[in-house]
Amino acid sequence: MKLPVGFKAAGISAEIKESGKLDLGLIVSEYPLSWALVATTNRLKAPCVSRNKGRYSSGKKVKAIVVNSGNANCANGEKGIWDNEDVAGLAAGALSYNTPHDILTASTGIIGKPLDIKKFRKALPKAAKKLKADSKNFAEAITTTDTHRKQVSVKLRGGGRIVGIAKGSGMIHPNMATMLAFVLTDADIDQDLLREHWPQIVDKSFNRITVDGDTSPNDMAFVFANGRKRVDSREFWTGLEQVAHELAQKIVRDGEGATKLMTVRVINARTEEGATKAAKAVAKSPLVKTAVHGSDPNWGRILNAVGYSGAVTDMGNISIKLQSILVYAGKPVDFDAELISESMQINDVLIEIDLAAGQANSVAWGCDLSADYVKINADYST
Amino acid sequence: MKLPVGFKAAGISAEIKESGKLDLGLIVSEYPLSWALVATTNRLKAPCVSRNKGRYSSGKKVKAIVVNSGNANCANGEKGIWDNEDVAGLAAGALSYNTPHDILTASTGIIGKPLDIKKFRKALPKAAKKLKADSKNFAEAITTTDTHRKQVSVKLRGGGRIVGIAKGSGMIHPNMATMLAFVLTDADIDQDLLREHWPQIVDKSFNRITVDGDTSPNDMAFVFANGRKRVDSREFWTGLEQVAHELAQKIVRDGEGATKLMTVRVINARTEEGATKAAKAVAKSPLVKTAVHGSDPNWGRILNAVGYSGAVTDMGNISIKLQSILVYAGKPVDFDAELISESMQINDVLIEIDLAAGQANSVAWGCDLSADYVKINADYST
Repeated sequence: MKLPVGFKAAGISAEIKESGKLDLGLIVSEYPLSWALVATTNRLKAPCVSRNKGRYSSGKKVKAIVVNSGNANCANGEKGIWDNEDVAGLAAGALSYNTPHDILTASTGIIGKPLDIKKFRKALPKAAKKLKADSKNFAEAITTTDTHRKQVSVKLRGGGRIVGIAKGSGMIHPNMATMLAFVLTDADIDQDLLREHWPQIVDKSFNRITVDGDTSPNDMAFVFANGRKRVDSREFWTGLEQVAHELAQKIVRDGEGATKLMTVRVINARTEEGATKAAKAVAKSPLVKTAVHGSDPNWGRILNAVGYSGAVTDMGNISIKLQSILVYAGKPVDFDAELISESMQINDVLIEIDLAAGQANSVAWGCDLSADYVKINADYST
Repeated sequence: MKLPVGFKAAGISAEIKESGKLDLGLIVSEYPLSWALVATTNRLKAPCVSRNKGRYSSGKKVKAIVVNSGNANCANGEKGIWDNEDVAGLAAGALSYNTPHDILTASTGIIGKPLDIKKFRKALPKAAKKLKADSKNFAEAITTTDTHRKQVSVKLRGGGRIVGIAKGSGMIHPNMATMLAFVLTDADIDQDLLREHWPQIVDKSFNRITVDGDTSPNDMAFVFANGRKRVDSREFWTGLEQVAHELAQKIVRDGEGATKLMTVRVINARTEEGATKAAKAVAKSPLVKTAVHGSDPNWGRILNAVGYSGAVTDMGNISIKLQSILVYAGKPVDFDAELISESMQINDVLIEIDLAAGQANSVAWGCDLSADYVKINADYST
């Protein structure tokens, strides 16, 4: 996809991945970038996360980010911290910047394997030479177990654009997990506003998806704005929300071994927080996920997950729809199980839960759990 | 197994399960029973759970319990409540008791399918005729996806005995899930003491195991004592703990699709609560479970789960042993990955985590996650 004005990106193989697939990505902007970041809540944090957070609190603008998808450079002790600094330094050299402070870092891949910094020394100048106004190679270079690139583009009136690029496949869980998202825009948006709204947008998109419930130490979702284009602010925020939502759904749909996207809507909860809690519990339940995989209209497992979510005090008035067909209304109702099962054999399964307790609504997305998930994860590192 | 003095049990087919396997169990005591119960924390509660809790708070002794493993009789609305009362009433009739109040009920199986009370009317008199001082048929009759019966017996000095019978396979999770446990003893133990200690014992046994993280609306762990034998109280409590521990381990080892028992020990935590939280997070992580399944010494996933457990503030000094071999000590350490992988191919995998933060220890048990788990759960109900 064509990048917004002033941005360039590259993706090459630095031979960090043994497969020889693209594994090093670079984004640069001709103009200083206003930026916002939401990072993992895992107590285990990769050095790139800690370093970016340091840059973040300085409030200073940045100009580039370098990403590798072969080695998470996490849990590598002191050496990991220095290696991460070196990556930023080497990128600064390759881009002829005066200081590595203008450069952020991100990484994903195996935890606990020391970085081979020589590979970065060799590859970063090559990456700098391949920079162009297109997202494709970068989008490819940040993937791990993803089965395809994830990119979304939105045009704004007046020529501005928002382009989102993400990776994420396993271990995706509310509150972020083995996912990286980079949203680039040429819109003229104040950094303070960006930092105020981005966490809210992330909370309703990337933090509403779940693949297996694990969360990773490397997750980050960025938005970068270089201010080249005047935009209608309302149109911009709507566009940014759309990009975040579409990326989040692309991630969960590509969950490891996933064959179906599960949308869980909870309505008429007492609070939005409770609605979200219930929706996430259902989207995360291995029993619901396997039932969806088997096209089994097993509403009992859904009700059960709502029960242990802790979000509901009175279970008496709950009703449940599967593929828009009522299957439970405080007690079992007659429904055509075969008909629903057939309609669950498609890629999208909709679960609607009416708590009849108030007026707050929420939604979460998950994917089915297949035998392939186990295969993918039983032999990823060795 | 031979039951303690004064107890009899039966297990027959009431044709509730389509397979024709045993599905109706009965335990009776010649003498009134002191009893204690720990039940599910799920907000969704089967009528049997609510009814037993009512009996419990009355403080009155009971004489029998009837269990079916074909139909959970949960989420069946008002009808479910009355059907459950009827089951107790029919059992009272079959046993020639004056009142159904002396009888508790338990059920497991599919949620949301109305009970066919005729089957109980027909089967309960038959079950009453088959009562004998042996646990085998009862242990068989309470199983669902279990691959075998789960029974443990402990002899006490002076002739007293403790016999535990349990079922549980999928959806086993700290705080109880699709598990039922019945511990019978002829020991002379005060009911108040039993009710004081049983929750603590359950907390360190059944509440420390996890199969897939889901919790069920029907879980209950009972202990019944008929007071026939004088016992040494210290010996009794130790024996009761042993029975609960062994049953819990039998349950998790028989987790759906499980091939390995995972023991997760956390030492030197600041608090026991924190140690338990970290141990449970590791035992529950799908990524750790699949790695254990694949005999992959992937300590990064273990560290990661400790990180998101929320139990640890300083991740810097953690060390991890896999099969007693050090694999991480604040940073990666050299280890023979092939050697550990080979040693992980057995039925028991030991994960030890030293938090170096205090002096509290804890342990949790889990099982590996296999492709068979998905197969079992993708087509259980239809």
